[in-house]
Amino acid sequence: MTDPAYSQLTAEQLDTEVLADFRELSRFGETPRGGVDREAMTAPDVEQRGWLTAWLTERGFRVECDRVGNQFGLYTWTPGAPYVLLGSHLDSQPLGGKFDGAYGVLAAAQAAWRLVRRFEESGHTPRHNIAVVNWFNEEGSRFQPSMMGSSVYTGKMDADAALKTVDLTGVSVAEALEAGGALGTGDGPEAAAYAEIHIEQGRHLDEEGVTIGLVEATWAAQKYHLIVTGDQSHTGSTVISDRHDALLGASHLVVAAREIADRFGPDMHTSVGQMVIEPNSPVVVAREVRLHLDMRSPDESLVAQADALLHERIAEIEELASVRIEKDTAHSWGLLPYDPRGVELSREVAEELGLSHRDIMTIAGHDSTNVKDVVPSVMLFVPSVDGVSHNEGEYTTDADLCAGVDLFTGVAARLVGGALD
Amino acid sequence: MTDPAYSQLTAEQLDTEVLADFRELSRFGETPRGGVDREAMTAPDVEQRGWLTAWLTERGFRVECDRVGNQFGLYTWTPGAPYVLLGSHLDSQPLGGKFDGAYGVLAAAQAAWRLVRRFEESGHTPRHNIAVVNWFNEEGSRFQPSMMGSSVYTGKMDADAALKTVDLTGVSVAEALEAGGALGTGDGPEAAAYAEIHIEQGRHLDEEGVTIGLVEATWAAQKYHLIVTGDQSHTGSTVISDRHDALLGASHLVVAAREIADRFGPDMHTSVGQMVIEPNSPVVVAREVRLHLDMRSPDESLVAQADALLHERIAEIEELASVRIEKDTAHSWGLLPYDPRGVELSREVAEELGLSHRDIMTIAGHDSTNVKDVVPSVMLFVPSVDGVSHNEGEYTTDADLCAGVDLFTGVAARLVGGALD
Repeated sequence: MTDPAYSQLTAEQLDTEVLADFRELSRFGETPRGGVDREAMTAPDVEQRGWLTAWLTERGFRVECDRVGNQFGLYTWTPGAPYVLLGSHLDSQPLGGKFDGAYGVLAAAQAAWRLVRRFEESGHTPRHNIAVVNWFNEEGSRFQPSMMGSSVYTGKMDADAALKTVDLTGVSVAEALEAGGALGTGDGPEAAAYAEIHIEQGRHLDEEGVTIGLVEATWAAQKYHLIVTGDQSHTGSTVISDRHDALLGASHLVVAAREIADRFGPDMHTSVGQMVIEPNSPVVVAREVRLHLDMRSPDESLVAQADALLHERIAEIEELASVRIEKDTAHSWGLLPYDPRGVELSREVAEELGLSHRDIMTIAGHDSTNVKDVVPSVMLFVPSVDGVSHNEGEYTTDADLCAGVDLFTGVAARLVGGALD
Repeated sequence: MTDPAYSQLTAEQLDTEVLADFRELSRFGETPRGGVDREAMTAPDVEQRGWLTAWLTERGFRVECDRVGNQFGLYTWTPGAPYVLLGSHLDSQPLGGKFDGAYGVLAAAQAAWRLVRRFEESGHTPRHNIAVVNWFNEEGSRFQPSMMGSSVYTGKMDADAALKTVDLTGVSVAEALEAGGALGTGDGPEAAAYAEIHIEQGRHLDEEGVTIGLVEATWAAQKYHLIVTGDQSHTGSTVISDRHDALLGASHLVVAAREIADRFGPDMHTSVGQMVIEPNSPVVVAREVRLHLDMRSPDESLVAQADALLHERIAEIEELASVRIEKDTAHSWGLLPYDPRGVELSREVAEELGLSHRDIMTIAGHDSTNVKDVVPSVMLFVPSVDGVSHNEGEYTTDADLCAGVDLFTGVAARLVGGALD
């Protein structure tokens, strides 16, 4: 790359780089209604990873994948020193938005490239090396659980278990990674700190006209993968009292989840987004339904109360639909704080840049939800208009995208200097 | 075939033929738990059709498929004369029972072969020719609607529409038939009459210890294919009041269907057996669910009342879940009688053979439900232990299977003689 000296670039030129690259990124898996469809290791995801590899390599980063397909772009000033990781994920939901995850990887790449140029020009060497990361399968729509790549990186999930996970058509993670040329080796680089920036996926910033969200904690959550077991029979001829209808049991669970949300008010979000129904024939009473049910709140005690209520409802539904409901997996966390020093550091950078900001919680999980448990981590938000998320209509203004990258660069500069060591 | 003279065979030898062939038939797509998995034009269905072709051809039948894959084995005494069709279907539900449909085709083949031998030996020529038929895609689990082959044969469904129907993976009927070597031409043979025998798919005969059910009518039914439209969003972060959850709407419909059954009592069967959920990701509020809902009763006025109640509930659910619910297709029928002369004729044969019998209605649809509207048709049942149906545990005793074939042969003999002309 033959660029002008970094210090000669205007803010407008830097913004132009951000927006041009974001337009490029948004082409992969683009949909007619302005979103993207780029599930983990589908063709557009593989193509986009190739684009990122080329982008990083051209700028002097060394690109490698670890054993579960996390893609790292390493810039090493000091061999043997740990890395400040900056990143998010490029995979999307089916018919998802183009900002979710991809904006975070873009911001990471842009921030890292700004710092590389700055240090090249100054001749200084920062305390830590820097790495851009694109975590594998954050979305969890194709392969469950979500945040798979960062879960393995942080030792929360066994790599073999991840590799053996299959999608609904029976393709394993290992097969998909192999086919996509993304199956590497090793555990990835050692991290000194981590930072991630993301659209809010809520409407607080947008409604209040605030540019930056400083994420102080994750909502508490209780997630279940439930198996409803009935018995297969003819939908027409089987008398009602003989039926063990797994789909009826599952439907009662969906309704119960919403009732729980309604009962506890705005501080309780519940949902069921996926059901796998067997045999799913129009004329067969379902023998089995597997579903994901989750309940989240900024108040841990509400999650506990909701969980107790759910268990009461499960017992009633088993009776009502003559089915058995079992927990396949249960996964819960309390209110999970981010390192408060990272929040303060980010607040200082926002103040310096004159960006409006507020403390905020994240309801959605992010890769930083995992990484913060092993190294000091910073999580930042930019606004999402009307809080639209996991939808092609997701939208963040250019000004907010660019402000976020400026902020993220300032945060990254402090982290490579050792601010959270 | 070099067989002993038909008239020299003992009843026990004839039963042995039936049971040996039924064992053969049950091998195709057999499952570890004693059922079969043989959806239309899957490999085991194609193999089994090949077996039937060989069986019929060896015995002097000419085998041909019509333009939608209905498989006919024709025995022509009088060129140009119409055929008495005897048959049912060889396809099954996923993890279905081995008796459903396959027993009817077996009984048809056995009865036809007995008659062929009887007429060969006697030197007489019956009034009508005879044909064994294996109707394509009766089950409707892979391709909707069910009873597709007989619907086209009877002019109730357009052949092109049937051929263009796709399964959940996008394979069309035309492609599946072509691949399975079952795409023929023409409309099939002209029918003089039709007869079918099937397991009851209910528990009346089994509980009362009666061997033969003489089907006098089909329950009235109202079937809908409904589309619930919501809007895709993040299951965690989207505030509840912003959600348009198609899966919640669909789940309320499943619950409402059961409430309707509970309200009207044993003379009302309702169900939802299939849901197609988009995008069906654990972390995305569903944007669309398509489902089949049906309501059946031996009392037409109850179906009308249930339908009115369902419409009230649909309006409430649209409000409750902030979704739109539209009817994609609606399909209804009143109480549909079979030709009473066929019922009497069958009763006489049962009396002659000393078989216990009773009049009965069918709740499930059968190919005869279609065929009876174009030619005089007879529908017969044998018991199914505990009424188990569309389940690997489906079971009918050898004695009942053999008695059914004897009865069916007697009925077929009268039909080829012109009893229902």
